[in-house]
Amino acid sequence: MDATHAPGLRSWVESANVPGHDFPIQNLPLGVFSTPGSRPRGGVAIGDMVLDIAAALAAGRLSGAAAEAAAEPTLNRLMSYGQDAAAELRARLSALLAEGAEPLPDLLHPQSAVTMHLPVEVRNFSDFMASRPHCERLGRARNRDNPLPPAFHHLPVAYHSRASSVRPSGTPLRRPWGQFQRDGAVVFAPTEALDFELELAIWIAEENVLGEPTPISAADRRIFGIGLLNDWSARDIQRFEMPPLGPFLSKSVMTSVSPWVVTMQAMAPFMAPLPPRAAGDPPCPAHLHSSRPDAMRITMRAAIQTPRMAAAGIAPHVVTEAPFEEMYWSAAQMVAHHTSNGCNLLPGDLLGSGTVSGSRPGQEACLAELLLRGPIILPSGETRRFLEDGDCVIFTARAEAPGAVPIGFGECRGSVLPAAAWPVSEEG
Amino acid sequence: MDATHAPGLRSWVESANVPGHDFPIQNLPLGVFSTPGSRPRGGVAIGDMVLDIAAALAAGRLSGAAAEAAAEPTLNRLMSYGQDAAAELRARLSALLAEGAEPLPDLLHPQSAVTMHLPVEVRNFSDFMASRPHCERLGRARNRDNPLPPAFHHLPVAYHSRASSVRPSGTPLRRPWGQFQRDGAVVFAPTEALDFELELAIWIAEENVLGEPTPISAADRRIFGIGLLNDWSARDIQRFEMPPLGPFLSKSVMTSVSPWVVTMQAMAPFMAPLPPRAAGDPPCPAHLHSSRPDAMRITMRAAIQTPRMAAAGIAPHVVTEAPFEEMYWSAAQMVAHHTSNGCNLLPGDLLGSGTVSGSRPGQEACLAELLLRGPIILPSGETRRFLEDGDCVIFTARAEAPGAVPIGFGECRGSVLPAAAWPVSEEG
Repeated sequence: MDATHAPGLRSWVESANVPGHDFPIQNLPLGVFSTPGSRPRGGVAIGDMVLDIAAALAAGRLSGAAAEAAAEPTLNRLMSYGQDAAAELRARLSALLAEGAEPLPDLLHPQSAVTMHLPVEVRNFSDFMASRPHCERLGRARNRDNPLPPAFHHLPVAYHSRASSVRPSGTPLRRPWGQFQRDGAVVFAPTEALDFELELAIWIAEENVLGEPTPISAADRRIFGIGLLNDWSARDIQRFEMPPLGPFLSKSVMTSVSPWVVTMQAMAPFMAPLPPRAAGDPPCPAHLHSSRPDAMRITMRAAIQTPRMAAAGIAPHVVTEAPFEEMYWSAAQMVAHHTSNGCNLLPGDLLGSGTVSGSRPGQEACLAELLLRGPIILPSGETRRFLEDGDCVIFTARAEAPGAVPIGFGECRGSVLPAAAWPVSEEG
Repeated sequence: MDATHAPGLRSWVESANVPGHDFPIQNLPLGVFSTPGSRPRGGVAIGDMVLDIAAALAAGRLSGAAAEAAAEPTLNRLMSYGQDAAAELRARLSALLAEGAEPLPDLLHPQSAVTMHLPVEVRNFSDFMASRPHCERLGRARNRDNPLPPAFHHLPVAYHSRASSVRPSGTPLRRPWGQFQRDGAVVFAPTEALDFELELAIWIAEENVLGEPTPISAADRRIFGIGLLNDWSARDIQRFEMPPLGPFLSKSVMTSVSPWVVTMQAMAPFMAPLPPRAAGDPPCPAHLHSSRPDAMRITMRAAIQTPRMAAAGIAPHVVTEAPFEEMYWSAAQMVAHHTSNGCNLLPGDLLGSGTVSGSRPGQEACLAELLLRGPIILPSGETRRFLEDGDCVIFTARAEAPGAVPIGFGECRGSVLPAAAWPVSEEG
């Protein structure tokens, strides 16, 4: 743990020093923001404020290739530079914002006054399935005695997902139409089983040439940072379309990500050993094995607020509190697996961790799993099996470890808009 | 059929007038090329030559937004303009290259002297499964009596595939490592079941806003053009990783596309009605139904040349000759389905048609299907179950219809390089 993590370190931005804030000076996540009438550009979250990196460069308070890349309208170039550049930038930002440095209020914007954008141009998005309880709970419907996919213990199971429909937190989701089975017939109708999946977003650093794997020994260096991801899922559409090629339109409706990228430098105090494999599990394959502490001590939460709750001033209700630390496969193992066939990962590519369900009740990280214990009962007295129009889903998370100042991730939120009328005449 | 298709139309580029040439003046496919020491830019294939669109603009022989977009290092902007722009450009190119117009040899480069590049920056790639015989042959291993996926007759089954590993014809494929089952154990080794899949590449025009489907009535306008696509597949890796999320590393090794984009304007004479559904099939869903002639009269061929054949001067051996016209779902239906959940397709996005297998012997469009009748016997006396190191796979195709000058697609080719040694120490 270097000086940028020191628990006593405080910022001249007072809100950053409030205990329990998501964005103390020990965090310094990067994102892309705009103010009214200005173009999107890079910023760093500090307390309730955003430091304008382009303004800091113009004022001579920052310099160098990493800061210049961090000021751009996307962070792809910064991510192409890799972790050393991110570490150097972090040290400069920490010095600039630390208590004792000259306060520079002109470089700040209140977070409440800015619009946050996608932090990168997402070129490719792959989604994993790395929680054993998630797979077991949902797999039991298919095969009671053998609920896990055959490859589960051998590799982090994943599929290519859709890059074009990734959107930043706050973008509403239009309930999609799709085909599914209802009362024995196949219908084309608005989904009746709209779900969220609470996941971690993993942002890729650097690029490997097609045909050249990134071995597990170097795979941690390919992770630039992390955030929150809602892999919105239409379960009825998914069930019908999935065999044998996997999920398609059930997932490409939209994927929401939180706008702040928490760097792996900020995550250093929160890394932990992977949980040991259970007695009966096969050993981890050698090309995916690492003794690095690649697990992350993050508690992730999903909350729901219905329109009636909002109208009554009832706060979002936490329906899930899940431990990312218990995931069966690490983000580094996902990178090593993904590139093991030579597939090239590009700077700013996005990996989804898969639904972060824990093994205990209350740790089910999607409605399909929660529903196995019955519909959710909300503080308004309403119940939910799946999401209804107007419902808002809010993800938050917190990394905590002994001796470290906890950090947060901001929010990943989205509301459900009613389905549109089917747009047009159907005969071409 | 407009004047640009007239069978009597000839070009001042003599090689374009050779009967049976892939690139007569009735074709005029677009691509991106470079000459030694120069930057990639747009061109049009005419006979054995490439017309340099940037040079034609500079010489005042072409003008306008479409021609300017077609001169860029990728065709994405031209594709964003849609089919009307492509039609206008086609008319100008046809007039410029027609017999009787002033010959402009300074604007031409021999195709043999240029390097072809990817025609677009591929942002998203989705791969379909639209041949009933392909699904039936390979599905019988899973379920003898019910080999088709449950959704097959209701929608064109598809999965999101990998955009970053799409490469132009001629790029060699490095045999990938992966995990698969061998003699009851899971091993990590170079694939032992490397296959090709003969597919059509479908290039998307224009963009629909996320949440706004493109109805079937407008879906044909979203197809800019077509080419050939080899969806290289590692069958052993695929079999192990596929349940339940679909193919992943078995497909993202590499995908090859032919460099020339045959526009839908060039395809006009070769459009035909979709084959009628069989008596027992459910009807086509209304939102995917069209009476437009959206099928395409294309015969597609896959050939193999082993190193021994090449050394002995034996030509590539055609192992498949498949009728694209028989595909169960049209490209327009793929677009309508893909956007039916509101998913946004971007200009230059790539759709793969899926393996174009016909129902008759000799029309199996991948080795996994061909192998059901036994190993292939090559003219050299060699046999093949799957591809071996050094083997070259060459796709060609031809659109033909009564009264129209046939057109071709050029080649989509790739050779197999031996697997690399596993790169590095495995402990992180």
